[in-house]
Amino acid sequence: MEKIEPRNLKGFRDFGPQDQLIRQQFFNTIRDSFESFGFLPMDTPVLEYKEILMGKYGDDEKLVYNFTDNGDREVAMRYDLTVPFARFVAQNEGQLTFPFKRYQIAPVWRADKPQKGRYREFYQCDIDVVGSSSPMADIEVISCLAKTFEALGLDSYLVRLNDRTIFKDFSQDAIRVIDKVEKIGVDGLVKEMKQRGVSEQEIEAAKNLVMGEAQQIPENLQQIINGLEQMGLKGEVAFDPTIARGLDYYSSTVFEFVLQDNPAFGSVCGGGRYDGLLDQFSKQSQPAVGGSIGIDRLLAALEDLGKEITVTSTKAIILNLDANLSGEYLQLAQTLRAQGVSCEVYYEAAKLDKQFKYAEQKNIEYAILIGPDEAKDDKAQLKNVTTRDQEELSQTMLIKQLIQSQ
Amino acid sequence: MEKIEPRNLKGFRDFGPQDQLIRQQFFNTIRDSFESFGFLPMDTPVLEYKEILMGKYGDDEKLVYNFTDNGDREVAMRYDLTVPFARFVAQNEGQLTFPFKRYQIAPVWRADKPQKGRYREFYQCDIDVVGSSSPMADIEVISCLAKTFEALGLDSYLVRLNDRTIFKDFSQDAIRVIDKVEKIGVDGLVKEMKQRGVSEQEIEAAKNLVMGEAQQIPENLQQIINGLEQMGLKGEVAFDPTIARGLDYYSSTVFEFVLQDNPAFGSVCGGGRYDGLLDQFSKQSQPAVGGSIGIDRLLAALEDLGKEITVTSTKAIILNLDANLSGEYLQLAQTLRAQGVSCEVYYEAAKLDKQFKYAEQKNIEYAILIGPDEAKDDKAQLKNVTTRDQEELSQTMLIKQLIQSQ
Repeated sequence: MEKIEPRNLKGFRDFGPQDQLIRQQFFNTIRDSFESFGFLPMDTPVLEYKEILMGKYGDDEKLVYNFTDNGDREVAMRYDLTVPFARFVAQNEGQLTFPFKRYQIAPVWRADKPQKGRYREFYQCDIDVVGSSSPMADIEVISCLAKTFEALGLDSYLVRLNDRTIFKDFSQDAIRVIDKVEKIGVDGLVKEMKQRGVSEQEIEAAKNLVMGEAQQIPENLQQIINGLEQMGLKGEVAFDPTIARGLDYYSSTVFEFVLQDNPAFGSVCGGGRYDGLLDQFSKQSQPAVGGSIGIDRLLAALEDLGKEITVTSTKAIILNLDANLSGEYLQLAQTLRAQGVSCEVYYEAAKLDKQFKYAEQKNIEYAILIGPDEAKDDKAQLKNVTTRDQEELSQTMLIKQLIQSQ
Repeated sequence: MEKIEPRNLKGFRDFGPQDQLIRQQFFNTIRDSFESFGFLPMDTPVLEYKEILMGKYGDDEKLVYNFTDNGDREVAMRYDLTVPFARFVAQNEGQLTFPFKRYQIAPVWRADKPQKGRYREFYQCDIDVVGSSSPMADIEVISCLAKTFEALGLDSYLVRLNDRTIFKDFSQDAIRVIDKVEKIGVDGLVKEMKQRGVSEQEIEAAKNLVMGEAQQIPENLQQIINGLEQMGLKGEVAFDPTIARGLDYYSSTVFEFVLQDNPAFGSVCGGGRYDGLLDQFSKQSQPAVGGSIGIDRLLAALEDLGKEITVTSTKAIILNLDANLSGEYLQLAQTLRAQGVSCEVYYEAAKLDKQFKYAEQKNIEYAILIGPDEAKDDKAQLKNVTTRDQEELSQTMLIKQLIQSQ
C-alpha cells in the first residue's frame, strides 16, 4: 500500500490531551467570566459568502482564506468573529433584544506568514455589545476583559486606551503607521509614512502625536477611564495616543492589553468601538463596542512566565489481572462512574509493569487491583500510582474512599 | 454606502444565545461522560493536506470541501474527526502511550445536499481507542456512548451491532447497498445492486442475509454483546446483520444507535473497528475502534420528542435609575460577581418599562433598583422579574440573599 506522509499544514497545530486539557480549562474560566457579566454565548459558521468579509480588514484583506465551492459560490473562511457577528445582528434585528450582548469563543483563519506565536488557525474569545452608545458599555466590555485576565491569574496587565477621533485629521494610511510606532520607532514611522506617500504636514503632526506633545484626553475617554477606576481593577489603565488598531472599522474608543511582566508578547487583547460596521449590512444604524482575547498568545506568555497550569486526569484505573474477571472489572468501573469517579479498565491482562507505566503516563492517581482471591471475597487492593502505597479494602470501602478523595 | 445583504450560506447555521446555551450544556454533559471513561480531549486543525483525506470515504469523497490555498497547496476541510485523528497518531506514535484514548467534539464540513436535519457544517462528538484489539475496547467505546445517551436523558436507545467480517464474500459495492436496505427495502436493494453491476450470486446471498436467514453471530461479536450486558445499560443491544456503515475503513465491529421513541431520525450515533486505517499513514499497524455521536440529529430528535431543555441565564440586573449613580451600580455589580452571582448593569437611564422588558427577554431572575434615596441609605429594592414581588433590603442583605439563591 502506498503510504501517505502524516503531516500538518504550516501554521496549523494539533493539540494532544495534555495541551487540550489546559486549553479547555482556560476556555471554561473565560466563559464563566464572560457569563458573570451577562454576556451570553453565540456561534456563527466557519464559511461565509466572501462579500460579507470583504472591505472590512484594510491591508489584511489579502489574508482571508477564500475559494469557489462546488456550487460556484465565492466563499471565505472566518477571519475574525466581529464581522460575522455584525452580519448576524443585521440579519436578525427584529428578533433580538437590544442592547444585545454576546460572547463567542471560536477559531479564525488567516493566511499570514507563520512565526513564533503566530498561527494560521487560532482561537479568539470575543465579547461585544450592540445597541448602546453609552460609555457604560465601553466600561463594561473593558472591565469584563480585565476581570477575565484576573480570573486567569494574570493581574499585572496594562490597558492602553485611546479614542480614534483624535486621528480625525489623519489619513487611513497615516493611522496604520502610527499604530505601529512602538514596533518601528519614530524614525521607522517617518520612513514608512514617506514610502506610503503621506504628506509632510501629516508626518509632522504624527511625530508630535507619538512623541506625546500635550495630547488632551477626549472627554468621552476620560469618562471611561473614571468608570474603570471604580471597578477596582488589579491592572493599570492608561491613555496612549499612539494606539489606533489596524482594522478600518473602529470609530472611537480603541484599547489594547499588554502583560507588564512580559511586554515582548505585545498586545494579548484588543478592541474598541465600531459604530459604523453594522451600517454596511443594515438600514438601521447600530452603535457597537467589543473586544477580543488572543488565547494563543496568552498561553504562550504564561508558559514563558513559567506559570504552571495543572489539570486533572482520570481518577482511577482498574488493572487487568485476569481476563476471566473482565465482567467484574467493567461492573465496578461503572459503579464508580455512577458516583462521579472517572475510571477506566485496562483492556488486556498484560504484565503489571506495563499497566502501571500506562497509569503513570496518563497521570492516573489510583490503581485498583482485583485478582481471583480478591474477587471471591469482594475485596480489592487500592494503590497510589505515584507513591505505590497499597492497602487492602472491601470493595464497598474502596468505592467510599474514592468518592471522598474527589 | 452600498449595502451587503446579510445572509448565510445554504446548509450553514447561526446559533443565537438560547440555542447556544443548550448546545454548550449538551457538550458539557458529553465531555463529562467521555472523561468519566478515561477518554481525554484532543483537537486537530480544520484544514489538512487534501491527500490526507482522499481515499478514505468511498462514494462520499466528492463531498469533501477542498481548494488550492494562497501557497498553491491542495488543502481540504475536515470531513470527519477519525481520519485526522489517525494522521495525528501516525505522526506522533513515538510520544503517545498506547492504548491511546481520546475524545474530540468539533465541527466537520460536507458539501452534501442540505435537507431536514442535514447540514453542511455540523458537530461530531467522537471517542476512539488506538492500540488494542481486545473486545474490551469495543465494549468500552459502545458502553461509553450508551452511558452518554443516558446522561443526556435518552434511555430508550437501541444499539444495532454487526461484524463486517460476515460480508467477507461481498464486494464493496454490495456492502454499500446492504447498508441501505432499511431505507430502500429488499426490492430497492436488488434494483440498486443490478444498477451497480453486482453479480446474481451476490444479490441472492445479500437477499438471504438481509431477510435474516439464520445468520450466526460471530464469536467476537457475541463476546462484545455479553460484555455490554454486564454494563447495566438502560437501552437495548441487538445483532443486526444488515448494518455495514458506509465508510470503507471499518474492518470488523460496526454499530449504530437509534432512538426507539423516534426511529425516523435514523442513526444518531455510529462507529466501529477500523484496524487498517492507520496503516495508510504508518509503517506500524495499529488496531483501532471508535464511535461518533451526531449532536445535531440528537438535538433535533429531542426537540421533536418535546423534551424541554432548560438553561440558566444571568442571575441579576441592576437597573439604571439615575445616570449619576453609574459608579455605584458598577461597584455593586462587581461585588456580586466576585461572590459568584452573574450580574449586569443596564447602560442607560431609560424608562423602567423598557429596562424590565430587557430583563424579561433575557430571562434574568432578579432586578435590583437603587435610586438616590436608596443609595444614600445603602439600601436597594430587590424585585423578582417574573412575579414582580419586591422587597427593600440593605445592600449587605441583598448580596447575601442573592448568593443564597444560587
